[in-house]
Formats: sequence, C-alpha cells, structure tokens
Amino acid sequence: MVDELDLKIIRMLEEDGSISFTEMARKLKLNESTVRKRVLSLKEKKVIRKFSIVIDPAKIGFSTIAVVGIDAAPDKLLEIAQKLAELPETRYVATSAGDHMIMTEIWASDGRELSQILSKKIGMIEGVKKVCPAIVLEKIKE
Amino acid sequence: MVDELDLKIIRMLEEDGSISFTEMARKLKLNESTVRKRVLSLKEKKVIRKFSIVIDPAKIGFSTIAVVGIDAAPDKLLEIAQKLAELPETRYVATSAGDHMIMTEIWASDGRELSQILSKKIGMIEGVKKVCPAIVLEKIKE
Amino acid sequence: MVDELDLKIIRMLEEDGSISFTEMARKLKLNESTVRKRVLSLKEKKVIRKFSIVIDPAKIGFSTIAVVGIDAAPDKLLEIAQKLAELPETRYVATSAGDHMIMTEIWASDGRELSQILSKKIGMIEGVKKVCPAIVLEKIKE
Amino acid sequence: MVDELDLKIIRMLEEDGSISFTEMARKLKLNESTVRKRVLSLKEKKVIRKFSIVIDPAKIGFSTIAVVGIDAAPDKLLEIAQKLAELPETRYVATSAGDHMIMTEIWASDGRELSQILSKKIGMIEGVKKVCPAIVLEKIKE
Amino acid sequence: MVDELDLKIIRMLEEDGSISFTEMARKLKLNESTVRKRVLSLKEKKVIRKFSIVIDPAKIGFSTIAVVGIDAAPDKLLEIAQKLAELPETRYVATSAGDHMIMTEIWASDGRELSQILSKKIGMIEGVKKVCPAIVLEKIKE
Amino acid sequence: MVDELDLKIIRMLEEDGSISFTEMARKLKLNESTVRKRVLSLKEKKVIRKFSIVIDPAKIGFSTIAVVGIDAAPDKLLEIAQKLAELPETRYVATSAGDHMIMTEIWASDGRELSQILSKKIGMIEGVKKVCPAIVLEKIKE
Amino acid sequence: MVDELDLKIIRMLEEDGSISFTEMARKLKLNESTVRKRVLSLKEKKVIRKFSIVIDPAKIGFSTIAVVGIDAAPDKLLEIAQKLAELPETRYVATSAGDHMIMTEIWASDGRELSQILSKKIGMIEGVKKVCPAIVLEKIKE
Amino acid sequence: MVDELDLKIIRMLEEDGSISFTEMARKLKLNESTVRKRVLSLKEKKVIRKFSIVIDPAKIGFSTIAVVGIDAAPDKLLEIAQKLAELPETRYVATSAGDHMIMTEIWASDGRELSQILSKKIGMIEGVKKVCPAIVLEKIKE
Repeated sequence: MVDELDLKIIRMLEEDGSISFTEMARKLKLNESTVRKRVLSLKEKKVIRKFSIVIDPAKIGFSTIAVVGIDAAPDKLLEIAQKLAELPETRYVATSAGDHMIMTEIWASDGRELSQILSKKIGMIEGVKKVCPAIVLEKIKE
Repeated sequence: MVDELDLKIIRMLEEDGSISFTEMARKLKLNESTVRKRVLSLKEKKVIRKFSIVIDPAKIGFSTIAVVGIDAAPDKLLEIAQKLAELPETRYVATSAGDHMIMTEIWASDGRELSQILSKKIGMIEGVKKVCPAIVLEKIKE
Repeated sequence: MVDELDLKIIRMLEEDGSISFTEMARKLKLNESTVRKRVLSLKEKKVIRKFSIVIDPAKIGFSTIAVVGIDAAPDKLLEIAQKLAELPETRYVATSAGDHMIMTEIWASDGRELSQILSKKIGMIEGVKKVCPAIVLEKIKE
Repeated sequence: MVDELDLKIIRMLEEDGSISFTEMARKLKLNESTVRKRVLSLKEKKVIRKFSIVIDPAKIGFSTIAVVGIDAAPDKLLEIAQKLAELPETRYVATSAGDHMIMTEIWASDGRELSQILSKKIGMIEGVKKVCPAIVLEKIKE
Repeated sequence: MVDELDLKIIRMLEEDGSISFTEMARKLKLNESTVRKRVLSLKEKKVIRKFSIVIDPAKIGFSTIAVVGIDAAPDKLLEIAQKLAELPETRYVATSAGDHMIMTEIWASDGRELSQILSKKIGMIEGVKKVCPAIVLEKIKE
Repeated sequence: MVDELDLKIIRMLEEDGSISFTEMARKLKLNESTVRKRVLSLKEKKVIRKFSIVIDPAKIGFSTIAVVGIDAAPDKLLEIAQKLAELPETRYVATSAGDHMIMTEIWASDGRELSQILSKKIGMIEGVKKVCPAIVLEKIKE
Repeated sequence: MVDELDLKIIRMLEEDGSISFTEMARKLKLNESTVRKRVLSLKEKKVIRKFSIVIDPAKIGFSTIAVVGIDAAPDKLLEIAQKLAELPETRYVATSAGDHMIMTEIWASDGRELSQILSKKIGMIEGVKKVCPAIVLEKIKE
Repeated sequence: MVDELDLKIIRMLEEDGSISFTEMARKLKLNESTVRKRVLSLKEKKVIRKFSIVIDPAKIGFSTIAVVGIDAAPDKLLEIAQKLAELPETRYVATSAGDHMIMTEIWASDGRELSQILSKKIGMIEGVKKVCPAIVLEKIKE
C-alpha cells in the first residue's frame, strides 16, 4: 500500500495542499524529484483522490449547516444516494450502518431555506421517507 | 461578502485545488493577475481556510470509517470537543443540535482497532458518557 | 438593528404589555415622546410583531396541553405546516431540525378530546404519517 | 369558569393586546363599561395572566432559536426546572411527559453561543444529565 | 365526588372483592346497611365499574405476556383502538401520549403464538403500521 | 392445569366477580356444588389470585393517569421494583424486556401532582436514573 | 427433559463437536455404550438439532458482519422472516420483541457489498419497510 | 485465503459437522485423503474455529432467550465485554457499532430468572449502565 514516507507527504498536503515540492523536499530532507515522484504515484494510485480547498461556509453566505440522516425505502437505497449526490445542495453523501442508512451534509443560507431544500428538493426524490436534520453548531476540527 | 466571480473561483478550486492561475484565467476569460488577486483576497478573508487534499482511507490501510456521536456531560461539552480535536485519530469534530451533542469521524484499520480507540482513547476523556458509532458503508460524494 | 434602550423597552413590554408610555418614561428617566417614538419604530420595523395576552388555559377549560411532534411526508412538509397553522386547535406551529420536522401546541379539554383532534383533525391532513404528543405537566416560565 | 363573551374578548386581546375598550365595545356591540369590567375580572381571576408583546427574535440579533429537551436526575426535577426559569437565556420552561421531562426555549445569536449556553449555563445546573436541542427552522404560527 | 369513607370501602374491595357487607361493617365499625348503601351508590355512580378477579396467566397456559405499543395511521387511530378492543386476544387497550399512540396487553402461550397474533390478528387491522411488543418478565404488583 | 370448564368460570368471574354460585350453575347447566368446588380449587391453586373491583379513576379525583417507564441502575433493578410496589401511588409494577426495564402505573389528580410524585417519591429511590411517563388519553378496554 | 449427565455431554459437544465417544466416556468415567446411547437419544429428541462448525468469517473473505434489525409491515411479518431465511446471504433469522420485529445476521465482503445486499436483496422483499444494520466490531465469545 | 473447494467443504460441515471424510469424498467426487487434508488445513489456519453442536434451548429448560444490548461506560468497554464472556449465562458476546456497544445472548428458564441474571450478574459488572433485553420469539434460521 503506502509506506511511512507516503504518510508524511499525505499529512503535509492535508495541512497545506499548496505547498511546493521544493518546500516539501526541504522539510523531509529529500531531493525534490523523489517527492515529486511520490506525489504523482499517490495520485495515480488514487490514494490522493483530488486536491481541494476547505472553505468557511458562513463567509459565503451559508449560516445553517445540517447533517441530514435520510430514511429511504430499502429497495431504492442506492438510487436515492446517487440522486442526492447529483443535487448541488449536498456537500457530502454516504451510506452508513447507523441511525439512518444515508447521511448527507447540506449548506443553507438560513433555516427557512433549509426547510425548502429538505421538502422541495430531497423530499421529492422517490423513496425518501423521512429526513432528520441535525444542525452543526460549531466545527472544531476539519 | 463574496460575489459571483468569487463563487466560480471557489468551485474550481474545490474541484481541483492544484489548478494554476493561468488555467483558471483561461477558463474564466480573465487575465491571470485578476484571478491571483481574488484567490489571495479569499485566503486573507479566511473564506478559503486552507488548501488540502481528499484521500481514500482504504488505500492507506483504514478499512473502517465511523461517524461517532458522543454523549457528553453537559458542563464539559466544550472541553470534550476540544480534547477530541487534539486526538490524531479524529478527522473531524463538531458540536451539533441533533441526536448527539458532538459528532466526530474516526478512521481505523478494522473493527477491533475502532473498539480500542472508542474505549481507550475517546472513552478516557473525562465527561464522555456514551459513544455511538455509525459505520460508513460507502462514500458516494465528497 | 436595535440598541440597548430598545432592548430595555422590549423587556418592559414583555413583562407588562399594558404599561403606559408615561410609566415607561418615568422608569427609564426619559421623556414620554422619546419612548413613544421608539415603540412606534419597533412596531414599524416588525421587531414587535404584535401586542398580546398570556392566558391560563386551565381557567378557560383546557386541562390537557400537548406539544405534538409530527412526522410528515418530506415532500409535503411545508403544505402540512401551513394547514396546521390554519386549524383553530393549534396555538403554535414551527418547522424544526430535531426529533420531528414539525412541532405544534394543542389545547384540549381532556385526553379524549386530544385523541379526537389528533386523529380526526391533524391525522386527516394528507402526508401526516405519525403524531407524537407530549403532555405538558406544568408551565414554570412563559 | 368563563362564558362565550369572555372567550370573544380573550381572542380579541390575543390578536391585539393594545386594542382600546372603546374599540372592543364597538366590535362587540356592547357598552364600554361592560367590556372594561369583563377584562378586569379576567385579570383578577388570573385567566389573563399578563399583557405582553410577541417579538421577532431575528430582528434583535437572535438567529438561532432552540427548543431544548433536558434529561434531569429525577430527584432534582423540580429544582432544575426552577433554576432554568431563573436564567435570563430561557424564554419558556415546562415539565412534560414526553421524550424529555423538561422542555425549554433558548434564543442565541448563533450556534457557537448556543453551545456556550448549553454547556456553561444549563449544563452547570446540578442534576442536568443531557441536553437535547432542536433548532427551530421557521415559526409558521405563534 | 367521593368522601373518605367511600375511599376506605374502595380500598377494601380492591384488596378482596368477595368480602361480605357484614365483614366490612365490622372492620369499619359501622352498621351493615350503611356499607351496603355506599357500595350500591358507588356502583350506580360508576365509580365501581365492575367486580372482577385477578388471575395468574401462567397458570392457565399463558407464559408470554406482552405490552404492545402500536403505531397507527393517525387518521385511523380511534377505529384501530376500537378494533383491538374487540379482539379476544387483547386484555387491555388504551390510547396514550407516549412512545406509541396505542398500548395493548396480549397473553400468548409462547413466543411463537405471540408472533402469530401480532402478524395475523393485529397486523391485519387496516392502518396498523408497526407493532412494538415488550415482554413482561415479572409482575411485582397488580 | 385448567380445563375448558375452568376457563368458562374464569371468564364469567372476570366479567362479574360478584356473580352467585347459583347464577353461574344455572348458566353453565351444572349443579351449584360443582361450581363452588371448582372456584375454591381455582383459588387454592392460585389461578384466581384475588377477587377485586375495577374503578374509574376520574370519578375519585384522579384525572391524570400515567404509564411510567423507569430506567434503573442494573444492579438495583429488583430492589427498585420492590420499593415501587410499596409506594401507595403505584397501581401496578412489572419488570419488562422493552424500552424500559420497569413499568409502573401512577394515578395523580393533575400534571402538577404527577411531577411531584415522579420527582419527590419515585426519583428519590436510589438507583432510579430516568423516569419516562406516558399519559393515558383514554382507556378503551380493561 | 434432560438430566445432569445430558447437560455434561451437551457442554462437551459444544466445546468440541468432533470428540469421540471413547474420549467422552473416559472423561465422564462411564462406558462408551452409555455415552453413545445418550447422544443418540439427544439427537432423536431434537435436543441436539445438528452437528456443525464455527468458522471465522474474516478468513473466508467476509470482513463486514452486520446484525440487521428489520421493520416489517406487521401483516407480512412471518412471510418476510421466511423469505429472509431462504436468502443465502443470511446466517441467522429470528423474530423478536425488541427494537425490531425481525433480526438477521449478514456476512459481506465489505461495506459496499453490504449496501447492495440490504438494498437489492432484503429491500426487495415485499413488506420490508426499514433495515437497520449494526456492524459487529469484534466477537468476544461464540 | 480459501478456494471454491474449501467453501464447499465448509458448507457441508456447517450442515452436518458429523459427516465422515468418506461421505464428503463421495459427494465431492474426490478421494478421501484430499478431503482430510483440506479439513485439517482449514482447522490449522483457524478458518474452522471449532466443531460444535446446535441445540434447542427450550428442550433443556430454557424457555426465555434474550438478545441483550448493553450500554457501558466507554472507558470500560473492553473489560466489560471480557467479563461478560466469562459468565456461564452468556452464549455469545460481541462489540458492535449500533444501538448498543455490546450485544450478548442470554438463555434463562423464564422471565423471572432473566431479571435475576440481568440485575444480579450482568448489572453487577462495574461500568454497566443500562441493559436492554429483546426477547427472541422464534428462531427461523440458525
């Protein structure tokens, strides 16, 4: 799978995905081409699925963040998860073995908009039986 | 807050955080210095909190991913959330208004290791009363 | 939004909505016209939505007060909330992110009448799947 | 208890607590002194507990409204309800026979402040074992 | 309603419904005709709804006693309660404001027979959505 | 155990515990001494545990009837059930395998008195962790 | 039913179902024909339902073991249990009086396959309303 | 791991653990020594953990079978699971990520004995906070 050096590189990139190969090489006391090869290999093997950014939803107008558990008709479970993934309003979709079979994260400007999304977007997907939103009060680590 | 152009830039960077200013400028039909200024401004205003990578936990040896709800003694809620954030085993920590007051995500190599983390790391934090793990079966969107 | 003086006036009026401008002015050591202007402004800006009274339901024949959580078909959530608001039997209707997506307060003369309202009025609204009444034992603060 | 005329007066005052006796008398086609006597009697018999105002919390800076269920050590139930009623942060406190023995309504400026109130104010009351907040998304009727 | 003497008579009859008027009169230091009149009056006013016996279900072949909560389609709540009351297998039926809107007690010879009753008798009533049996382990007081 | 005739006698006595042997003999087309022997035998074998009466709680001043689930410290389960049985306020006590390990029925004059009993009587028993009252709205069969 | 010697034999066979009659006889200080007769009798009376083996699912490729509670349409309860028993994917099926009316154990190669089984096999059975999987982290005793 | 032939042998032994090598060889159309080697290898690799028997609990006097969920103090989770495994009354113990962190199966002669085991054996283990028994009504597949 991956070795100790790969894990160090991964941790560095999680902390700062814009770090240069030069900087990584310096910190790891390796030459730049070694680091470059490792990163490329991690991307090819899909260990690194993508480079991305972490944003603060409140600062782009989303003051209501909800983790929503969804009860689905069991025979439509996978189709519903797929349709949720296609909605622009969902940030994250997973099937899980817990209180609810599907979990998704929604960003809304306020409670009123969240109600609208739950009822008019998610509730309209065939087979969705119940939506159980939990409002995120504060993200401590991400 | 942010305007339509900022949102376009954010969406591009979420999709590919390693995209160059040149490439973004080309796609947006703007000159590179405009894009560069916007991105810098988004970072300064902490709209973009950090550049990062999305990795596939299974490929670095974590086959058991759990979203764990935590019941905490109410008077220790914030301290517990803080201590959880400091554990290397947690990927994410938030307080929430739902089934549980704290939610955290744990990556473990298997069920046995997850039991160990829940009991010997999280369970040892003073004020943690109950841990309720939900195993993620499949991530559909992230 | 509002300043410290507005908040003082609001608190006074919550305590006694029939207090005169003269009395308020005396307590706040301001002249009456200042107080009058402030109150009018709070009403115009809809900070004060209405003047009302708080009554004791037991004294007008309602001995059974219930806070009722309602599970609704997700695609009919907003219509159901609207129809509940139109029933004379409901005192309060809100959508919420908790155990139930809709919460409403019902006043009934006794348990038998409450059963009737839940089954024959609320249960008849299309899309209502489950009604979960919690009986209020004693109001301590209101 | 009360008769049909009393109920009409109560409904009028719930709709507009600042209505004058003259106006009520006109609408009810009665003389003003009859109305005045009735209202005084309703206040004396504590049918009308107080005159008050209904305000819009968002307009005075409270964007996060939560109905909080509280699990209490059973032997401290009544003391806890009493202490909650004394906190300025609670708008409403009642004991109930439902999911939780105590229900209270909290107004906070945002999720972060709500976490603080739940942990540092309510959680500090001796005997409070668990706090279960449900965020109000939208009030439809009040 | 009833006075202190009525309550004493009620308690005596609850303890032993076959006690004679003579015996009751002796214990209460009253003459027999007073007691007789009181008991007749309690029956006429339906304070005493009936004389009955308390039996031990295990001794007549019922080893599995279940208190069954029933989730009903809200608009059929009262009809379902009525139909349950007509089934010979139910010992007790009530509507309630708790986890379930209807509660009933079933006596069965064993777990297999209970499954049959739940599925083939109760489950067949239109509008019954979920049956939640709790097995009684031991009756301590009755 | 018991035969078909015993069951007929039991059903008759459940319906009317004050029926005379003569009347039962007439209905069953048996002679009175056979019936008398059977009833005595059923009492001796404790099939019939006692003769009793069924009363209407509302008519002796109890307007609030609650079935209360009790969460108990597991090591004190049996002692708590025993202590509950000794309280005059409980009508019924059983251990069960369901949502709660102990179920009890309480009769109170109103919600306020029920709160008092739950907090000041039941809550004071050592090891009682949580009390979960469900209010009976209407008894349909008993 | 069975005597003390039968129970000893049963315990031995549960520990090691491949033990020889000779070895059992030696340990029990009995002659071999006595042991043989007892075992045959236990099989004939169906006390011993079958000889079997206990296997380690992880070692044959099943890394995700789930105990799945199933909510069923009450009128189809027994048919659903029967159909589940016929699926090769289920290891165990029982009706129960607890959180769910049916419990079953599923072995899957990973979370993705479990989702498929829940949705495409179990969810397709008519009358299955909800599936609630709990992942087994570690079997301590079996 | 294992191949198709191993799986066939495992299925045969699950169905009848007392089948002879000769019989297995005949059914699989292989020679006996091949089958013998495979079975020995499966035992050595601990794929087959043990040979055992499946018994009918009702026929050895256990009429009450319960699957018991256990809420444990998180920091004592693993010790409690270990202590439960040592109790002769438990048939099965596992940690799980579901409603409860520990699940165990108990066989008792009746409800009264089950109460005793839950309170006097399991409840006495330090850190056990709540026991939630579900009674098995009927085993359909095992």
